[in-house]
Amino acid sequence: MRAAVLHAPGEIRIEERERPSPGPREVLVKITAVGVCGSDVHYYEHGRIGPFVVEAPLVLGHESAGRVAAVGDAVTKHAVGDRVTLEPGVPCGRCRECRAGRYNLCPDVVFFATPPVDGAFANYVTIHEDFAFALPDELSDEAGALMEPLSVGIWACRKAAVSAGDRVLITGAGPIGLLAMQVALAFGATQVEISDVSEPRLALARRTGATRALRAGEDHPAEADALIECSGNADAMRAGIRALRPAGTAVIVGMGPVETAEVPLALIQNREIWLTGTFRYANTYPTAIALAASGRVDLDAIITGRFPLEQTERALRAGREDPGSVKAIVHP
Amino acid sequence: MRAAVLHAPGEIRIEERERPSPGPREVLVKITAVGVCGSDVHYYEHGRIGPFVVEAPLVLGHESAGRVAAVGDAVTKHAVGDRVTLEPGVPCGRCRECRAGRYNLCPDVVFFATPPVDGAFANYVTIHEDFAFALPDELSDEAGALMEPLSVGIWACRKAAVSAGDRVLITGAGPIGLLAMQVALAFGATQVEISDVSEPRLALARRTGATRALRAGEDHPAEADALIECSGNADAMRAGIRALRPAGTAVIVGMGPVETAEVPLALIQNREIWLTGTFRYANTYPTAIALAASGRVDLDAIITGRFPLEQTERALRAGREDPGSVKAIVHP
Amino acid sequence: MRAAVLHAPGEIRIEERERPSPGPREVLVKITAVGVCGSDVHYYEHGRIGPFVVEAPLVLGHESAGRVAAVGDAVTKHAVGDRVTLEPGVPCGRCRECRAGRYNLCPDVVFFATPPVDGAFANYVTIHEDFAFALPDELSDEAGALMEPLSVGIWACRKAAVSAGDRVLITGAGPIGLLAMQVALAFGATQVEISDVSEPRLALARRTGATRALRAGEDHPAEADALIECSGNADAMRAGIRALRPAGTAVIVGMGPVETAEVPLALIQNREIWLTGTFRYANTYPTAIALAASGRVDLDAIITGRFPLEQTERALRAGREDPGSVKAIVHP
Amino acid sequence: MRAAVLHAPGEIRIEERERPSPGPREVLVKITAVGVCGSDVHYYEHGRIGPFVVEAPLVLGHESAGRVAAVGDAVTKHAVGDRVTLEPGVPCGRCRECRAGRYNLCPDVVFFATPPVDGAFANYVTIHEDFAFALPDELSDEAGALMEPLSVGIWACRKAAVSAGDRVLITGAGPIGLLAMQVALAFGATQVEISDVSEPRLALARRTGATRALRAGEDHPAEADALIECSGNADAMRAGIRALRPAGTAVIVGMGPVETAEVPLALIQNREIWLTGTFRYANTYPTAIALAASGRVDLDAIITGRFPLEQTERALRAGREDPGSVKAIVHP
Repeated sequence: MRAAVLHAPGEIRIEERERPSPGPREVLVKITAVGVCGSDVHYYEHGRIGPFVVEAPLVLGHESAGRVAAVGDAVTKHAVGDRVTLEPGVPCGRCRECRAGRYNLCPDVVFFATPPVDGAFANYVTIHEDFAFALPDELSDEAGALMEPLSVGIWACRKAAVSAGDRVLITGAGPIGLLAMQVALAFGATQVEISDVSEPRLALARRTGATRALRAGEDHPAEADALIECSGNADAMRAGIRALRPAGTAVIVGMGPVETAEVPLALIQNREIWLTGTFRYANTYPTAIALAASGRVDLDAIITGRFPLEQTERALRAGREDPGSVKAIVHP
Repeated sequence: MRAAVLHAPGEIRIEERERPSPGPREVLVKITAVGVCGSDVHYYEHGRIGPFVVEAPLVLGHESAGRVAAVGDAVTKHAVGDRVTLEPGVPCGRCRECRAGRYNLCPDVVFFATPPVDGAFANYVTIHEDFAFALPDELSDEAGALMEPLSVGIWACRKAAVSAGDRVLITGAGPIGLLAMQVALAFGATQVEISDVSEPRLALARRTGATRALRAGEDHPAEADALIECSGNADAMRAGIRALRPAGTAVIVGMGPVETAEVPLALIQNREIWLTGTFRYANTYPTAIALAASGRVDLDAIITGRFPLEQTERALRAGREDPGSVKAIVHP
Repeated sequence: MRAAVLHAPGEIRIEERERPSPGPREVLVKITAVGVCGSDVHYYEHGRIGPFVVEAPLVLGHESAGRVAAVGDAVTKHAVGDRVTLEPGVPCGRCRECRAGRYNLCPDVVFFATPPVDGAFANYVTIHEDFAFALPDELSDEAGALMEPLSVGIWACRKAAVSAGDRVLITGAGPIGLLAMQVALAFGATQVEISDVSEPRLALARRTGATRALRAGEDHPAEADALIECSGNADAMRAGIRALRPAGTAVIVGMGPVETAEVPLALIQNREIWLTGTFRYANTYPTAIALAASGRVDLDAIITGRFPLEQTERALRAGREDPGSVKAIVHP
Repeated sequence: MRAAVLHAPGEIRIEERERPSPGPREVLVKITAVGVCGSDVHYYEHGRIGPFVVEAPLVLGHESAGRVAAVGDAVTKHAVGDRVTLEPGVPCGRCRECRAGRYNLCPDVVFFATPPVDGAFANYVTIHEDFAFALPDELSDEAGALMEPLSVGIWACRKAAVSAGDRVLITGAGPIGLLAMQVALAFGATQVEISDVSEPRLALARRTGATRALRAGEDHPAEADALIECSGNADAMRAGIRALRPAGTAVIVGMGPVETAEVPLALIQNREIWLTGTFRYANTYPTAIALAASGRVDLDAIITGRFPLEQTERALRAGREDPGSVKAIVHP
């Protein structure tokens, strides 16, 4: 099989690799669609994300879907030919975090495209059967791949406890912000404002349901019950926190350039605001599939480019080179 | 002004009454639409509901909207001419339940159309300004009146913690069940099944979004995360509880004919199911208005009759006399 | 090694068995103390508990502690000689319930002394290293064995959301009720009433901290925030529910003789009471150890008999034969 | 009656004032004990706290207890002679925050000793009967006065969801930190570490139950489930946040010298830590009374000075002048 392998910052090679064999409880999946995530781009450009350093050739890609090509001896949940989407992190299932239902915080999780674990820019991958989810007919393979960033939005909305009639502010209209926005609407939020510096992204936000699109730093957000920060920009975060009602919740999803940030602490105290961040997601895939299959979210709307495996590098550069790019999909 | 006054079971008289004057923090509201609730019908037919006995002439009606006709000296939130919907129960604001945010359980609440407090089948009522809510232009007066039963559905969905992608079973497709069903969809539920014995009501359920309509006692519900019981029928409740997934929640809204009911206790234990009931609602009006104004729920769909104040009695009898009747509205 | 094996109702044989070998992630534990649970007695007397039927010889006992005698190749958390208490149910770690943190509801859990899985009335058992917990010096082996029923009490108090200053009613002063009572005190409850028909058990309750001991069916409980039902008696359950404040919680721990029970449903609705049940426990062992090691609960107080492995049958009959018996311990 | 009146920073005058008359639902309370709070000291020294500026003569003091001296016409809950403790903030009872149970965030709250509302360094005050709580015989008047700072500790532990077996880190061993520490123990926490720069305060912490007392900036805290920051020091806050387990909670109680603070945001995200602050408290007085009356907290231990009303100024200066001072009490 072939795979797109990162050898050094800015250097992807298409290589032949041996097709993996599934373990007893694993399935072998022929990958048909993989979304390009900002973290893939970051590894491609910088060779690392914080403490995670690419020290050996690495296959990127963790937003994936495909078709079951073979199953291990003990597999009971899938059969050859099934269309599936892959939850890319398999936790240990036994540690304190796993037992408490916080398996996204499992210190022993094995996660696609995180050094030294290979990802899905390849013809085949294997995964534990419980982390492959059947795709209903309503969902395309591309939509299947996007269950992963959709999960990020769902997790943020759950942390923010978004519920029907809520007022949600999203800062940052990149792929995650745009999906979090649609998810907030699917959770029943009736005022969903989103801010960005990019007019094309704001236009896309308007088309996909934003009740108001704000030019970051210029327009003032209305009072909100929840902030979902997706820009990684500390000013946006602070402005968003100031827009929260008393006892509102700020969920920080976007990663900033530095480890620390200044927050309006007196205001957090006086209004008893809750602030937290998200790290991946847990227990979101069934919800993601249900929302997409029932038409509550429109995933096609954010796909702006499609590339064969051989052009994975172009897909990784699309965001830098085309300001209109939102989400690129690689089709191995 | 005129009011429709219950003097004895089955006996409503249209009478002239003195127009009330608003207290300092009260507004006088000219009532334009009042929904007929099952409890109004029960008082009309039986003169009592459990411990609440009609011992003196009583004005029924607690689902109401209208226009502000006068304001007390200290009113700051409304002006003459404002269109408003009325939350019909004004709690004390200071007792243990009120302080804890459970004001629907306030033992000193003053609630419309609950002996000895008069309701809204009248030209005018007064209410504390904080329990009148501005109606946005998107909402008709009739829709405004229906913020009350919509609140019952919202409260049930909140108790059941319905969230996006959930699977909800509603038993009973009367006005409350039908609204709870629409609310569950607005909360993001993607599988919403509803059961009833009436085919016309099931047809209405299908038209307003049910993902499946079940003939009660015949069709089997799918596994559900939450049950919202709106039929008052113990068999329906038990069948609904058995359909719940482990750790699912059963919210009992419908009042049965007797004080007690047999429940599958061993199953509740083995699956750690949560069971509770609802009594009115708290903190729901802003949500109800937001959901209706944004088009997430269709209130017109359940209105099946309109009557002038003089025909309040006909409105109260509509449910018994017309099997297709769902929600009658009185226009004073 | 030797084990006490149930061959038929009322028939325990002490047999030689092959000592088990630990798997790669398992530890072999030399058992030093095993508590006798009501479920052991039920299997011994009836050969079944509901759907669980003893169809082949079975070793009972699931409240156990001991010393690590050998470790599998991949074990990292324990060493030979460590004193440990055993959480007797090992869940799959991957299903919906496990992922959500509700691993006690895992359909594939492997649980000691539940047909066909053998328990701990034996010299040795093996268990996954993550389900053996180090015993601090403050805790005896007997106390270690009682981490299991203590967990039942902790789980009940968590379900009831018992917190500091709460008022808790416990119905039933058997081993579970008595431990739940101590746990409620350790959670900070300041009014903890307990009811039973047995005066010796009420006396023991008083000695171990009950703020009031009630003769079941005679004395009236005070208003409570939470009910923890440990008697399996439906009248006690109903009386307890009626004692709850509005929005209080009833947690049903005791198993009754039949599958269903009549509950005061109108009251549950009017007061918005929450009712649920418990099935085993999850994430309780670290808490149990911390509470016992810090002296917040007194486990010795409930131990009323000690038996060698050869007298397991006497231990199982102690509850029937001695009305003063509360908790018997077998020392293999 | 006499009152200690702040006229300017550093200037308290003992003045004769007219005894207030209780309104219909109010009680007149003869004050017998008032604790000195850091906010009183701050007003005394600076004439303001943030946006709250003393522009007219102001009576300080909001930690108070006394005896009912007269009651309004409509009072039903108290009688002349009753010993009571006073919850010093009376909210409106009707706004969004009040209705949601967050009455501490009511924008219209009337709070003792907050300009322009007078406090309790006086012979008499009036208060709505629902905000006076009966003192049981077990509690002295001084303990009654300390229900207020005890409430701050309870509120912090509730925000942090402290439960039995938890590990809590308190930073800052002033009156609030010391009480929060005792409250954490009363909530069942079994590891309660507290840090400060003052050795006498750490010694007091050890005497009142700290499982470990840390020299701030030198000793490293153990992993904790919750941080309760009571020092107002940003370094202490950051060190405390870094000690939290994944998904742990940081509750910021201490007010720092500036409006903003730098936080380790990447760590908050990667560990999904929750951060919030507290503003006063809600629904804590019954809990405070229950904990103190049952002996779960020792309030006498923190009282280090007692002063007559005439020496209110000395009481306000005690903290500055005596490094061993923790809590001064004024006895009007």
